[in-house]
Amino acid sequence: MAAPDQLDRLRVVLVATRNPLNIGAAARAMSNFGFLRLRVVQPFDLAFREARSAVGAPGLLRDAEMFSTVAEAVADCSLVVGTAAVGSRQVEQPVKRLEQGAGPIRTHLADQRVALLFGSEKRGLSNDDLSYCHWLMRIPTRTEHDSMNLGQAVAVCLYELIRTDVTPRSEPRLESPAPAHAEELDRMAQSLLVALAVSGYTKPGTEIATEEKVRRLVRRLNLNSSDAETLTGMFAKMRRAGARD
Amino acid sequence: MAAPDQLDRLRVVLVATRNPLNIGAAARAMSNFGFLRLRVVQPFDLAFREARSAVGAPGLLRDAEMFSTVAEAVADCSLVVGTAAVGSRQVEQPVKRLEQGAGPIRTHLADQRVALLFGSEKRGLSNDDLSYCHWLMRIPTRTEHDSMNLGQAVAVCLYELIRTDVTPRSEPRLESPAPAHAEELDRMAQSLLVALAVSGYTKPGTEIATEEKVRRLVRRLNLNSSDAETLTGMFAKMRRAGARD
Repeated sequence: MAAPDQLDRLRVVLVATRNPLNIGAAARAMSNFGFLRLRVVQPFDLAFREARSAVGAPGLLRDAEMFSTVAEAVADCSLVVGTAAVGSRQVEQPVKRLEQGAGPIRTHLADQRVALLFGSEKRGLSNDDLSYCHWLMRIPTRTEHDSMNLGQAVAVCLYELIRTDVTPRSEPRLESPAPAHAEELDRMAQSLLVALAVSGYTKPGTEIATEEKVRRLVRRLNLNSSDAETLTGMFAKMRRAGARD
Repeated sequence: MAAPDQLDRLRVVLVATRNPLNIGAAARAMSNFGFLRLRVVQPFDLAFREARSAVGAPGLLRDAEMFSTVAEAVADCSLVVGTAAVGSRQVEQPVKRLEQGAGPIRTHLADQRVALLFGSEKRGLSNDDLSYCHWLMRIPTRTEHDSMNLGQAVAVCLYELIRTDVTPRSEPRLESPAPAHAEELDRMAQSLLVALAVSGYTKPGTEIATEEKVRRLVRRLNLNSSDAETLTGMFAKMRRAGARD
């Protein structure tokens, strides 16, 4: 996860957005992931006013800066990255997949401002908009359906920026309680075996085979101490019920 | 990027979704990333019909399966993962960050079906819904604003599932027997619950709490199909013994 002042150096720039719901959705995703600097370039005026005044609009939407050109909106940024579905379209700039582009952006944000541009719902960024970009970033969608909803595209890009790399080996066992010790497992197995014997599950002559079967079974169960105790109690209760008659 | 038949084993399950735009947005993100199997549980009827008939609705929305309970919607899946903001709420299940959860889900999808659950816009997944989940997955949002828009949450989770590591790593697959499906777990839980009721373990008035406790417990047990069947048989036998008197 990036440091707060690193996040604060990103400018999310929405160019010619038409739908107020999409402006609101972009702002919400920004707030979710901790990027609070929104810039809009020539939004449909009504759309922007509506999004701004929507109930529950995050503060960052009210603080959004409005520009009339892309040039002005990115003027104070030293890296400008455009997002594009690309597809069959010819582009002049280098294109990086989102997974590959996030690293360089994060590095840059360590001490420099970065602008991340998103185009209009219908046509994306124009060639003129793209000409302000150092490179383009592509979300790895299917070629059969590569056009993403604007708010979702913003969410996915920002998530990748704050994403923490995890290698499977270092995966911590989150909030999982202590595994049961062998003696707790044996106590539970014993409790289950007595309940089985009392119930008639264990056929005469199969006692040893059943005991081994149960011992292996309880070891496959991935039990923690607390669950082992719970089950031991359950079996004890069932045994007493079975023995009553 | 995962193989197509791997993607085809994921069931995206929307529980009690209210807004047709959100159902449509979830379907669009699914189509963008190549996951085509949508299930809905008790959607607001009108919302679902509206989303289905919207202009440009992807085919997967028309093919969506409707269920009246979470249990039915996940019955044929052997791994059930709930998405949750968690926050201050107490949950019983282990919680993994999205970056950590995606690996195990992908591994499972290599030969098994996985259900990924998303709750309603207002309240997320209920405790009852969560009790069907093996574990929960949390998108790493800010604690100050952790509630995501539904369509954006779906997009971010699915992106993480198809995301390609820049430095590829191999995920070893352990040789292990087929994990139990949800309906096998439910059958076993049911068998245990009846045995507990007959034995007097379940106190009057605690039936629902016991049921949820047992449902969570059986999902922690890492059961394969054969062990689940063995235990179901054991509990059935104990129940009959307990009921004899």
